Amino acid sequence: MSVQQPPWSLPSRKTDEPVLKLYNSLTKTKTEFIPRDGRRVKWYNCGPTVYDASHMGHARNYVTQDILRRIMTDYFGYDVHFVQNVTDIDDKIILRARQNHLFNKFRSETTSLSPELIAQIQEAWSIYVHEKISKGLPESERPSNGDEAKSWPRLADLFKDKAWKQECLKRDEKFDMHFSAANKAYSAVQVAEGLLRSNCVGQDVTHQLLEESRDILAVSLDEKYKSTVTDPSIFRSLAAYWEGQFFSDMERLRVREPDTVTRVTEYVPEVVDFVHGIIKNGYGYEHEGSVYFDTSAFDTSEGHDYAKLEPWSKGNRELLEEGEGALSSRTQWSASDFALWKASKPGEPSWPSPWGAGRPGWHIECSVMASAVFGDNMDIHSGGIDLAFPHHDNEMAQSEAYHNCGSWVNYFIHTGHLHIEGLKMSKSLKNFITIDEILQRYTARQLRLAFLSQLWNAKIDFSESLMSGEVKNVEMTLNNFFTTVKALISQSRAGGDRSDGQHHYEDVEQGFTSSFHDSQSAFREALCDSFNTPAALNVLRELVSRTNVYINSRGKNLNIGIVEHVASWVGRMLRMFGLGEGEKSEIGWGQEGEQGISANREEILMPYLRSLSSFRDGIRRLAIAKGDTALKDILSLCDRLRDEDLVPLGVALDDQEDGKALVKLVPPGELIKAREEKRLQAEAKAVAKAAKVEADRQKRIAKLEKGRVSPEEFFKPPNVPEGTYSSWNELGMPTADGDGKELSKNQQKKVQKEWDMQKKLHAEFLRWQEEGEQ
Amino acid sequence: MSVQQPPWSLPSRKTDEPVLKLYNSLTKTKTEFIPRDGRRVKWYNCGPTVYDASHMGHARNYVTQDILRRIMTDYFGYDVHFVQNVTDIDDKIILRARQNHLFNKFRSETTSLSPELIAQIQEAWSIYVHEKISKGLPESERPSNGDEAKSWPRLADLFKDKAWKQECLKRDEKFDMHFSAANKAYSAVQVAEGLLRSNCVGQDVTHQLLEESRDILAVSLDEKYKSTVTDPSIFRSLAAYWEGQFFSDMERLRVREPDTVTRVTEYVPEVVDFVHGIIKNGYGYEHEGSVYFDTSAFDTSEGHDYAKLEPWSKGNRELLEEGEGALSSRTQWSASDFALWKASKPGEPSWPSPWGAGRPGWHIECSVMASAVFGDNMDIHSGGIDLAFPHHDNEMAQSEAYHNCGSWVNYFIHTGHLHIEGLKMSKSLKNFITIDEILQRYTARQLRLAFLSQLWNAKIDFSESLMSGEVKNVEMTLNNFFTTVKALISQSRAGGDRSDGQHHYEDVEQGFTSSFHDSQSAFREALCDSFNTPAALNVLRELVSRTNVYINSRGKNLNIGIVEHVASWVGRMLRMFGLGEGEKSEIGWGQEGEQGISANREEILMPYLRSLSSFRDGIRRLAIAKGDTALKDILSLCDRLRDEDLVPLGVALDDQEDGKALVKLVPPGELIKAREEKRLQAEAKAVAKAAKVEADRQKRIAKLEKGRVSPEEFFKPPNVPEGTYSSWNELGMPTADGDGKELSKNQQKKVQKEWDMQKKLHAEFLRWQEEGEQ
Repeated sequence: MSVQQPPWSLPSRKTDEPVLKLYNSLTKTKTEFIPRDGRRVKWYNCGPTVYDASHMGHARNYVTQDILRRIMTDYFGYDVHFVQNVTDIDDKIILRARQNHLFNKFRSETTSLSPELIAQIQEAWSIYVHEKISKGLPESERPSNGDEAKSWPRLADLFKDKAWKQECLKRDEKFDMHFSAANKAYSAVQVAEGLLRSNCVGQDVTHQLLEESRDILAVSLDEKYKSTVTDPSIFRSLAAYWEGQFFSDMERLRVREPDTVTRVTEYVPEVVDFVHGIIKNGYGYEHEGSVYFDTSAFDTSEGHDYAKLEPWSKGNRELLEEGEGALSSRTQWSASDFALWKASKPGEPSWPSPWGAGRPGWHIECSVMASAVFGDNMDIHSGGIDLAFPHHDNEMAQSEAYHNCGSWVNYFIHTGHLHIEGLKMSKSLKNFITIDEILQRYTARQLRLAFLSQLWNAKIDFSESLMSGEVKNVEMTLNNFFTTVKALISQSRAGGDRSDGQHHYEDVEQGFTSSFHDSQSAFREALCDSFNTPAALNVLRELVSRTNVYINSRGKNLNIGIVEHVASWVGRMLRMFGLGEGEKSEIGWGQEGEQGISANREEILMPYLRSLSSFRDGIRRLAIAKGDTALKDILSLCDRLRDEDLVPLGVALDDQEDGKALVKLVPPGELIKAREEKRLQAEAKAVAKAAKVEADRQKRIAKLEKGRVSPEEFFKPPNVPEGTYSSWNELGMPTADGDGKELSKNQQKKVQKEWDMQKKLHAEFLRWQEEGEQ
Repeated sequence: MSVQQPPWSLPSRKTDEPVLKLYNSLTKTKTEFIPRDGRRVKWYNCGPTVYDASHMGHARNYVTQDILRRIMTDYFGYDVHFVQNVTDIDDKIILRARQNHLFNKFRSETTSLSPELIAQIQEAWSIYVHEKISKGLPESERPSNGDEAKSWPRLADLFKDKAWKQECLKRDEKFDMHFSAANKAYSAVQVAEGLLRSNCVGQDVTHQLLEESRDILAVSLDEKYKSTVTDPSIFRSLAAYWEGQFFSDMERLRVREPDTVTRVTEYVPEVVDFVHGIIKNGYGYEHEGSVYFDTSAFDTSEGHDYAKLEPWSKGNRELLEEGEGALSSRTQWSASDFALWKASKPGEPSWPSPWGAGRPGWHIECSVMASAVFGDNMDIHSGGIDLAFPHHDNEMAQSEAYHNCGSWVNYFIHTGHLHIEGLKMSKSLKNFITIDEILQRYTARQLRLAFLSQLWNAKIDFSESLMSGEVKNVEMTLNNFFTTVKALISQSRAGGDRSDGQHHYEDVEQGFTSSFHDSQSAFREALCDSFNTPAALNVLRELVSRTNVYINSRGKNLNIGIVEHVASWVGRMLRMFGLGEGEKSEIGWGQEGEQGISANREEILMPYLRSLSSFRDGIRRLAIAKGDTALKDILSLCDRLRDEDLVPLGVALDDQEDGKALVKLVPPGELIKAREEKRLQAEAKAVAKAAKVEADRQKRIAKLEKGRVSPEEFFKPPNVPEGTYSSWNELGMPTADGDGKELSKNQQKKVQKEWDMQKKLHAEFLRWQEEGEQ
């Protein structure tokens, strides 16, 4: 072809486009986000330790991570691989499981009150108070060793003073919990002593005493019998239960499931190998069956840094000890070293290793499991800010020690603390709220809005005023907006003609459209700015408010198209944040259905249909039982419901022998076809039956017709050919044949027989005629 | 703080990341896509001319555009502003509306057969055949002028020969349509002549004749009376009707509504201004009330090119004439010039302009409306390939002439042709399929899969074998896959403990995960490669097949997490393509509901609930009408359904006077509260009633108790104080007082009266006792 297209030139790219930046704990600044492998993002998030119910702190952390993850996948379009672990080996799990087990065993073995039982509890009580309470008191107030029981009433009085209690709480945040436990048990023992005197010693009062003393008894039973607990399923079943509860809470909060879930219990051999590798690389040493990480060897080696996240926390004994766990009992301590592998004492679950039976340290699990899935690097590691030191710093050190690499994690992101009404949440402060409790007060959407309205890495103060103020406000604003827009759209389409002849695209609309595009850019800019969701939410709020102003100002000149465009974008962004109702992280692409009815149609309908069907069952049962013919109408209503009304709705009611119909949702087409076939069969049967009746009738008539002639006429023409006979007696019986020859005896006999037969037939015929030939 | 974090370095970006390229009709190559303004994309798509039902060609075009638009917004995350016009001024609309109007008028005025009517139809027939058929025949076969009626039987016979017909079709693709119309009318007239001879001239046979001759009559009536058609609503209502049908078809195909819809009728003043601007810039001239675009002035001017899309089609008379419309009647013709503004003849809708009453040309509307919304540039312009020349080339020339710019559109994308079983779709070939018809045979999902399986800019051959082969195959494969995965997931969670102690992340899983990530990259690469959906779909199919192989090979070692991750991604990508069922382009973020039930819950439920309720209504009516006490049980079943079963399901049945209960969906909480209040009221009433009964009983007992003492003992101690009386008669009536003094007459009388009274009371008391103190 000789004619050519004119040259075309590539448009120039806008230079000030925002790029995604994340607040990176590794720099404490916002750094540009660049994944190692194109659009693929490897992301590891620290999951829960499963030994108790999840609380508001968990909600804040996991909902926030879910929001960031949705922004990355659904807004920025990254192919994210999100891995999250479940910590199911942990000192807290061991203690809780063992104490539960020992207490329950003791409880089931103890069926009556006795002086020995009371003495046992008193002893447990004294040790508990001595260990957990007295030791924390100032010398002057401390009961002399073992005298706790005597001093108790005085102490209890003292503690009613708030200032005093605050002092103790400052020293030990679990003080209040211990004090309450001791106090409850003290009272229970006093009551039990009285009951014993009255010889009231039954199982009920005994178990009452045990329950009230549970906390102190569990500690003492564990101290005495822990080494007897050897069945690993005791630890496993506690973890499995709380893992189930965790994921069910997450589902209620509409947190997407991780793409991959890893559990420490599943990775112990890999942990052993990993620890071995660290030792081989010169960064680990064994001591009394445990293995420790040599922080100073690591920190001083070329290309490695220990505690990249919080170098200033190195050697912080308190943080480190907390990281080591309650069951740790090291005799030697090298300032900032930490356990990779812990020797297990009797009563602690254990796995074989070159250093003897033991279990993984806490930090090592994440190193091992993230490496198992991702190899020697990842793009993003996330977790609550509490975990930054020592957990994440130790994790990084271990992994870099094992892989001999310099940056195992490129972006470390930490969600901020959660406070409740200005205070740290704790059981002692009585402001501890579980996820189950909070969901009784607020919806998942309201909670998510609350978290979205704060920076993900800032401290959030969860307060009544936040929820009933800002959150409910924005929710109401958005709900009202959508309701208005929907009403306007349906109004604009009500007439049939979508046009009123005007384009409604004047300067005002030009300006409004352009400000809408500015909002879209501002929204993107906010999310690029380290997921600034409060700013992004604000963009949406302002856009909604400008749209409301536009709607109210334009009256009949309103351009509903623009409003619909805005509303549909706002809705999409809210759903992107996970605020959408009715959203299910469903597998697949939905079920095929004529009206595009959603996949949970069956789920919605079935309870109602079961109600309908069992009502009908009841009615039928009654109607049949009464056997009253007047109830026939009711039965036919029942049939009509099944055959006429429910068929086009796609409901099959299959009546069963036991009177309970089976309810099924079936495509209406199939039901109609089946009904048609049934009808055709019934018709065919009816036709066949009618044909048989008619045939029988014809046969009977033919037989009756034989008797039409009276016996007197039976042997005379025209009933016999002319000339068959020539003479007859008075009864019409022939006496001579056509030739005048008298009939033979035999012939006469035969004639007589035929005559008798005809008489009978004729009588039947006459009767039939009398009855009107029925 | 003196301790510093170690330095952090920005990861390096992968260099071979794919960038989005589009097949650009302006270069006939794939060019990198760069929007002018960051992530904002201005996109104009040519919409329908609304004068008839939408067909498969429309389905292909709009579904394909919808797919590209979804990829741009939902996958690549652009902020797209998608504008689409409705062509509601067009010669086809004018002709169709006018002919419909004139024919319907004639029909309503013609109520009986007459020789005049038949003559009128015959005349119309002759002209029709002469104009539309004879003229196309070879000289030798052509009837002499006006002799068509005589030659018809011979011609009709000739046309039965297929080869002959093909010849004619080649010359005129509407030949077959014209021939059928003429033939039908010919037969109808013959029948009508017979009827007239039998004097059978009623309205039925008359209208039968008119309907059969409709096509030829409409042409002739329009020719005669077109100038009488002056009411603009005649044109408007046809356009409004077919616009409504178009959008309803699009909804059924799950094509998202445009963000902005523009209609020519709404933009006529802007068209006039725009044409004026083109003239002012030197590229337009007026001729007999019409205005034309001066293509050569434009093409030769510096910085402008005419026909950038198809320079080789410049001056293609046939294409240009088609672009000018059926009502065009230019006396002068400058080779490749085209109308910007058309003078309207009588019977054509018109608007005022400086050049007299007229209407916009076809191409100008898109220039004007796109400019009105986007200004002097846009990123993407799209449409069917049929429109490339002259429509799009003219549109670009006009806009660049008006805006005095060089590139009004940066990316021009054209969807390919659609053939049916290898042939062009046309009414003549009897392979013309409307969207309504095709949706009776295939689902919207199947059609979309068919379009996805072909390149958007390639010719697609829509065939039975494509649908029943490839499309149904891939649909079944995906359905089976999702069913399997869902079953595996639910199986893996059935036990309560999600872990079996193994991580199931062996080498096989490492490999499988990595191949899954490769699929994600390949999918992205395919879409970056000018939306190569067949390749992308293939990536999904291969991934599904590899996953099936993985599932089948691993047995108990299966890692369900990976499978779930794959299935969830595949489902998300299918939904992104618009293949998801149950998806609604709903405004908002769904309704708040405890179980996350979708907003159309009411929509789904109501038909079933109405069925249930009217069944119950019927039962109640019968039970009440029969008045049989045996039916009380049935009524209480009815009450139980209302009060017990439906309340927790959130259904209120309000029984009305007319026996038809009102059905309402109400939050169960409210219903339970209302029921509780009703119950408490009833209880309170019952308690009050019972209290009254008891009080009455007590009163009665008190009265009866007075009669416990016999009259004989009534005046003796202990019933009176010792010493009240001193002597009594045989009936126990006192005769003397405590002092022995005889009672006075008056006293005796009083005693007698009291005695009588007591006798009566005592008798009552005895009777009460006999009856068991009831």
